[in-house]
Amino acid sequence: MALVVQKYGGTSVGSIDRIKAVAARVAKARDRGDRLVVVVSAMAGETNRLFKLASELTELPDVRETDALVATGEQVSAALLSIRLQGLGYPAVSFLGFQMNLATDSNHGRARIKSVQCDRVMRALDDGRIVVVAGYQGVNADGDITTLGRGASDLTAVALAAALKADACEIYTDVDGVYTADPNVCPKAKKLGRISYDEMLEMAGLGAKVLQLRSVELARRYNVPLVVRSSFSEAEGTWVGKEDQSMEDVLVSGVTLDQNQSKITIAGVEDRPGLAARIFGPIADAGIVVDMIIQNASADGRTDMTFTIGREDLPRTLDLTRRVANEIGATDVRHQDQTAKVSVVGLGMRSHAGVAARMFQVLANERINIEMIATSEIKVSVVVNSKYGELAMRALHDAFINGAATAAPDGLA
Amino acid sequence: MALVVQKYGGTSVGSIDRIKAVAARVAKARDRGDRLVVVVSAMAGETNRLFKLASELTELPDVRETDALVATGEQVSAALLSIRLQGLGYPAVSFLGFQMNLATDSNHGRARIKSVQCDRVMRALDDGRIVVVAGYQGVNADGDITTLGRGASDLTAVALAAALKADACEIYTDVDGVYTADPNVCPKAKKLGRISYDEMLEMAGLGAKVLQLRSVELARRYNVPLVVRSSFSEAEGTWVGKEDQSMEDVLVSGVTLDQNQSKITIAGVEDRPGLAARIFGPIADAGIVVDMIIQNASADGRTDMTFTIGREDLPRTLDLTRRVANEIGATDVRHQDQTAKVSVVGLGMRSHAGVAARMFQVLANERINIEMIATSEIKVSVVVNSKYGELAMRALHDAFINGAATAAPDGLA
Repeated sequence: MALVVQKYGGTSVGSIDRIKAVAARVAKARDRGDRLVVVVSAMAGETNRLFKLASELTELPDVRETDALVATGEQVSAALLSIRLQGLGYPAVSFLGFQMNLATDSNHGRARIKSVQCDRVMRALDDGRIVVVAGYQGVNADGDITTLGRGASDLTAVALAAALKADACEIYTDVDGVYTADPNVCPKAKKLGRISYDEMLEMAGLGAKVLQLRSVELARRYNVPLVVRSSFSEAEGTWVGKEDQSMEDVLVSGVTLDQNQSKITIAGVEDRPGLAARIFGPIADAGIVVDMIIQNASADGRTDMTFTIGREDLPRTLDLTRRVANEIGATDVRHQDQTAKVSVVGLGMRSHAGVAARMFQVLANERINIEMIATSEIKVSVVVNSKYGELAMRALHDAFINGAATAAPDGLA
Repeated sequence: MALVVQKYGGTSVGSIDRIKAVAARVAKARDRGDRLVVVVSAMAGETNRLFKLASELTELPDVRETDALVATGEQVSAALLSIRLQGLGYPAVSFLGFQMNLATDSNHGRARIKSVQCDRVMRALDDGRIVVVAGYQGVNADGDITTLGRGASDLTAVALAAALKADACEIYTDVDGVYTADPNVCPKAKKLGRISYDEMLEMAGLGAKVLQLRSVELARRYNVPLVVRSSFSEAEGTWVGKEDQSMEDVLVSGVTLDQNQSKITIAGVEDRPGLAARIFGPIADAGIVVDMIIQNASADGRTDMTFTIGREDLPRTLDLTRRVANEIGATDVRHQDQTAKVSVVGLGMRSHAGVAARMFQVLANERINIEMIATSEIKVSVVVNSKYGELAMRALHDAFINGAATAAPDGLA
């Protein structure tokens, strides 16, 4: 009898009819004999509705109260799904964050899980019940409700799967798996059957929205087998797990595109130790995440520093950067609202040289100028003008995935 | 520095603008120096919306899950009010049922309060905070969320006022006090300045909807001074408290009308011991509240038994009654869908005879037939045909209140 944690996202529980469909799916798994823990998100649109109510009351709503407010979304979904399951004759019981002591720190709005007390969940499972869990929420040491950050119902599911040593964690969503690229941009994108944690991490971090980044990290740490599936079909999904030999045979597993970036350049910075810290210290203190940082080779003792950030952070970051630029005597601060980051990801890169070179050639063939480059062990990212983002993604997908599904011999590029 | 518990109903917090208005009122009380605990209901319509979602999923939604579902309504209001107060610069903190261990039994949907642990509330007050409390909800010994029944945010407020030994419990609603009759029916109805717990209890039980019955009982038991006021105006409200001599001078404090009743008669019942138990046992077991019961004097060994119930219970009660009637050999079961109960209430009745007789005379003058009569120490109720309900109310109000504000000499009727 397998112990399975299932997680259904907001679209999957977005209406009374959708909740009925989820209940039917859960019931079917139960009929197969699985022991089930089902984690649910808020009904689609509900979390935004609640955030909006708060923002209509004041500019910066208190974070503790906002958490208590938005956590109701998942509480409603969990109760409704449990009501439906019981209406169908299946014993079900819902638990909220505080009821299973899903303990977090006190960073409201983006709390980190410290521990989960599973005995009440285990007892309910032993009693033959389907356990329905409100995702996204926990409780701090004071008994205050916390939330784990946007998309964090995935995290609740993985944390429970790890704590319960579940056989699998199934993430049900509105797409039927992880694709080699966003099918809306790349019509030729293919669904992956398997992908490694590391590749999924890179892809999640690079803008593939199918799984939340932190939940993949947690799954990797505790070796939780994840599968991403559609709640709207019976199609096989994508398994995310430990890498194996066959995975390395695939040179590039996916191509991602992030259109939500802005670029800032500080020009004419005196090239001496400590300057990067002067520039990026205040930005980090403001809680702004800097993605890529490029420093050009120094000429006549002065250099240009370019970095990218999420577009929503541009006004605040520009403000901070201009202040610092003034203090350190930089000659200019330039920025570009919209840039696109295109990346190729694949375990195969580790053992095969030439992916970056081939990538640059593909983009050159399309006459797309590369503005920044960053690489890691299993990915290469480039920043290009936003208007070429989709073209770049399609060209790279054609070259690396539709053109060459498996690793090319060294040096082919 | 007075400690005041304020309670705002659903209409009072029914929109973002209304929540802002409530926050402004709370802030004003705070500026006067009061220590404040503010209990809120769900935004108007929200509780019904949640019940409806559950009922769309199954016919008889599980009660534990339904409580977890509907309790979100008050959680949202409490968080929003606290967010607004903090936005205005006032330190506020919200507490849910489980966070102040408002302990109840496990009768989901109509749980009874066992205790309230006030230390966290007191600590927050001592820290100078305004404490905002989600009404209507508690937690049972297992940590499950319970609700206290419709309108029970009043009960939360009174329970907290009792536990905190508050100086007053202010119930803010959409009317500006307790009236001698429903102003919609009796344009000449007057607002009462003061009323005793006992009179308020009778009036709440008889259909005056301004205060929840159980909360008045609790206020009487713990001697909590209540005041009913409008959240939409600055008008003085109605104080509900211990009776004093001046209250007894008023013969009749109010006239109430309950149009939501049905009447059932079992005719030709053999008049022997145990029959009433046979008839009303199954009805009580089904959780149906029987209001008035009249048994006519027996003639030739057989009698008629007539009783009233809430109209929503008519189909189930008829079904049960017909079954019993068959078993005990009654000759007939008759019913009337809509009947009206009209009552006059007043402490003065204790010491002044003749109220009932005068009431019957007033109704006779209007040619209204009385179908049933019931009396208690401080009230007289009659059941009349539904279509005469409002006329009866107005006539009695004219006679007892507009005509004679204070007690008439004995025997005037």
